[in-house]
Amino acid sequence: MTTFTLGELASRFGLEPRGDAATPIGGVCNLKPGKPGCLSFLSNPKYRAQLADTQAAAVIVTPRDAAGLKTAGLVAKDPYLAYARIAALFDPGRAFEPGIHPAASIDPSADVGVGVYVGPAAVIGAGSRIGAGSFVGPGCVIGRDVEISEGARLVAQVHVGDRVKLGLRCQVQPGAVIGSRGFGNARGPEGWEEVPQLGSVIVGDDVEIGANTCIDRGALDDTVIARGVRLDNLIQIAHNCVIGEHTAIAACTGIAGSTRIGARCMIGGAAGISGHLTIVDDVVVLGRCMVTRSLLEKGVYGSGIPVAPARDWRKRVARFRRLDVTETRLSAVEKQLGIEVRKLDEGDDGGDD
Amino acid sequence: MTTFTLGELASRFGLEPRGDAATPIGGVCNLKPGKPGCLSFLSNPKYRAQLADTQAAAVIVTPRDAAGLKTAGLVAKDPYLAYARIAALFDPGRAFEPGIHPAASIDPSADVGVGVYVGPAAVIGAGSRIGAGSFVGPGCVIGRDVEISEGARLVAQVHVGDRVKLGLRCQVQPGAVIGSRGFGNARGPEGWEEVPQLGSVIVGDDVEIGANTCIDRGALDDTVIARGVRLDNLIQIAHNCVIGEHTAIAACTGIAGSTRIGARCMIGGAAGISGHLTIVDDVVVLGRCMVTRSLLEKGVYGSGIPVAPARDWRKRVARFRRLDVTETRLSAVEKQLGIEVRKLDEGDDGGDD
Amino acid sequence: MTTFTLGELASRFGLEPRGDAATPIGGVCNLKPGKPGCLSFLSNPKYRAQLADTQAAAVIVTPRDAAGLKTAGLVAKDPYLAYARIAALFDPGRAFEPGIHPAASIDPSADVGVGVYVGPAAVIGAGSRIGAGSFVGPGCVIGRDVEISEGARLVAQVHVGDRVKLGLRCQVQPGAVIGSRGFGNARGPEGWEEVPQLGSVIVGDDVEIGANTCIDRGALDDTVIARGVRLDNLIQIAHNCVIGEHTAIAACTGIAGSTRIGARCMIGGAAGISGHLTIVDDVVVLGRCMVTRSLLEKGVYGSGIPVAPARDWRKRVARFRRLDVTETRLSAVEKQLGIEVRKLDEGDDGGDD
Repeated sequence: MTTFTLGELASRFGLEPRGDAATPIGGVCNLKPGKPGCLSFLSNPKYRAQLADTQAAAVIVTPRDAAGLKTAGLVAKDPYLAYARIAALFDPGRAFEPGIHPAASIDPSADVGVGVYVGPAAVIGAGSRIGAGSFVGPGCVIGRDVEISEGARLVAQVHVGDRVKLGLRCQVQPGAVIGSRGFGNARGPEGWEEVPQLGSVIVGDDVEIGANTCIDRGALDDTVIARGVRLDNLIQIAHNCVIGEHTAIAACTGIAGSTRIGARCMIGGAAGISGHLTIVDDVVVLGRCMVTRSLLEKGVYGSGIPVAPARDWRKRVARFRRLDVTETRLSAVEKQLGIEVRKLDEGDDGGDD
Repeated sequence: MTTFTLGELASRFGLEPRGDAATPIGGVCNLKPGKPGCLSFLSNPKYRAQLADTQAAAVIVTPRDAAGLKTAGLVAKDPYLAYARIAALFDPGRAFEPGIHPAASIDPSADVGVGVYVGPAAVIGAGSRIGAGSFVGPGCVIGRDVEISEGARLVAQVHVGDRVKLGLRCQVQPGAVIGSRGFGNARGPEGWEEVPQLGSVIVGDDVEIGANTCIDRGALDDTVIARGVRLDNLIQIAHNCVIGEHTAIAACTGIAGSTRIGARCMIGGAAGISGHLTIVDDVVVLGRCMVTRSLLEKGVYGSGIPVAPARDWRKRVARFRRLDVTETRLSAVEKQLGIEVRKLDEGDDGGDD
Repeated sequence: MTTFTLGELASRFGLEPRGDAATPIGGVCNLKPGKPGCLSFLSNPKYRAQLADTQAAAVIVTPRDAAGLKTAGLVAKDPYLAYARIAALFDPGRAFEPGIHPAASIDPSADVGVGVYVGPAAVIGAGSRIGAGSFVGPGCVIGRDVEISEGARLVAQVHVGDRVKLGLRCQVQPGAVIGSRGFGNARGPEGWEEVPQLGSVIVGDDVEIGANTCIDRGALDDTVIARGVRLDNLIQIAHNCVIGEHTAIAACTGIAGSTRIGARCMIGGAAGISGHLTIVDDVVVLGRCMVTRSLLEKGVYGSGIPVAPARDWRKRVARFRRLDVTETRLSAVEKQLGIEVRKLDEGDDGGDD
């Protein structure tokens, strides 16, 4: 591993050094307990006290925390962001030797750019283009007429279906499937008949797609993942969805067909979002939320009943089920007291709030 | 791409043409905005007004909507179904050249039928049979003694475990796993011990299985997916489940072991169905439903608390938790008023309704 | 298939035979209807009556049920465990011929132990070690500097990322991804920036990992799956989680980053567990539970509202939403009756109970 001096890192990333600029930095580490020779960061003021005890050689801090440094340091407006950028210098997973492995299968009509790596058991179909500097890991299957822009990183065993387009510098984790058939079926006289899914998936620049996540191709139009989107693992994005720029979606979330999600949204893990909805920009959907209506105002949304000891949970479920009885009892009481009973809408469809 | 005249399509699919039967149709499109030279359809009367503005060359409509056509058209009892069948003519994804790619690995004892394609990095194990006209895409792994019937389409990177049987014309999306080990474990003195899963998975004719969906093999009997079933992406079907004919299951649903689901059911996305249950024919389970008991009457079922602004959600959770207090307060009021308090069952186990 | 006598099985597994010790046993079967020549078991006393009608040649029973045997039998303290061990003799899926398939791609610097099988289209990266007697099935991709201990079974198409360590006798089902990038992102001026994930995944001995399950590598420290853990299919384990020894997790569960789960826990299917929580030893979390707080006492926990006919469900959701109105009405009644209204905390954050 390479080593940098604190001064080198400061000038390379535009940060202000504190202490001995010659301090050698050979890696990154947690603040607690820290690791000699390594650089850590303090972002959350809650952990400020750890500055005193860390074994790290240096710590990235905000200007406000700089006075509390007991070690060398780097001062940054956003220590976590500065850490992320510096840590990339120590990431052993990114460098690769370009070249086509002899056990790759590349159609003669495919166009593979300069500086590309194609691993063993990888397959690239007819008419596809792999942009310069891309990494197509072992076992990836790229279909026909696919366009993968420059600097992509398909780690391994990724599936990119026919005619799918990936923007610049996309990163895709193992097992992700981009461009599976949308779930379109029509009832015929003998059972379900397949509705051809003729659209594709268009993925913008700088998108990350997690392990075993699935993105279906559109029925006629395309499914669209705009630039800067972050998708975690095991996410389902159905046909014709549009996910806006820089939206981040946590693992295990499912989004049904034709739903449009705005820019800069944060969708928590295991959320379930129905089809044909609109979610505007800057919405935060908390984990496990059941979204059955459009969210047309920016804000934070949630649903679900959190954990309880099982005995309490069961009693509460029973009380929930007899809320009609509870309301009826209350109405009887009000009647006896001469309080006018307010008319309540029983017709709620579970979809509005 | 090929082009057909409207008249050709009408006679091929048994539909009634309207307007110029010589109208050339070179593809399919949405009704709004429509695309010149292409055929669209109107199924939902809500969109009837779009007939006036569409740029489509022709539209498939019901007899009732035929009078509203401003373009050429085709009259069909079920326009969506007619569209589905016609659209297949324009699907670039289905045609393939038969042949065994040199980078495929096929055990000499496997029996590969005529007109089969086996892609690069695909693997077919000893004693397996691939029916005529099947497509075994790149990276698929077919185990030992597997039977795949005629006309199957395994898109890519599919796993079909030892002894699994697939019926005619099954279609399987990338990353699906058919025949993984059922989750059977017995407690031993040193921890979990594996319970061998000796059954298989039997898949009927005309079944579709979505991307990254998992179907476990049975413990002793087989897991059964009956003919015509439609499974979306990222579904879990545990050992010994039986899914009845023509049932459709949306993405992210999980079904625990030994549950039997009837014919023609519709299971919404991200539903969770406990083990050892029975769901009868023609049941509709709405998305994200938590099914902890058998559903023995046909009908529509749901559960879950839909989305709300987070502040409202939190207050409602608090009120839900103090339903015991609310009921106690109500009982005190009733007592003071001399109303007899009804005895309520506190023993509800969360599983019955 | 081989056949054993009942007496052979009894002495091999330390069980007490009943009836004719020469009874030939050629396989295992269910108790009902049973299968001639095969061995079954009775574990759940509920099925005791089936002893009378079974066609099985012999049945494994508890000492208590031995008197009820109408066939030959084996007496065991734990019939299910005894069954599990005996059934393994009849499992056709486990035996393999060691050898490296010519269509495997193994880096010259990898160290492949004796008695290892490496299947076609499998890939083993530089510096990796595969322990003796391991099975690396077709299409598996093992990254660089991976350590796989003796006796592993990677069924097929498994991904094991760079630097991941698997303990002895681990079994991994198809499509599982071990060592994908943790979902670490920092907000930069132009959108999300990647936070390098420099940790790894450490998997203990005798762990099973299900189909299409994902385990992310840690950000700095490692994600840890302790020995004896059982993970079902389609599970998400985020970066820096620690799963304690012998804990079993059912399918479709998601666990967010840095959560620590204790030993011998049982986590039901489709549970959702938030990040940075602690769950102590011996906790049972029921299926679909939403865990948003630490569980610091051993016990059984649940949440969620189970299924109801859709009409009832919708009415209950409406009543749930107007719990504020219900409480206000109750307060008005109490006021009119001169009952002192208890002050209620509205500030519940949905996370505590």
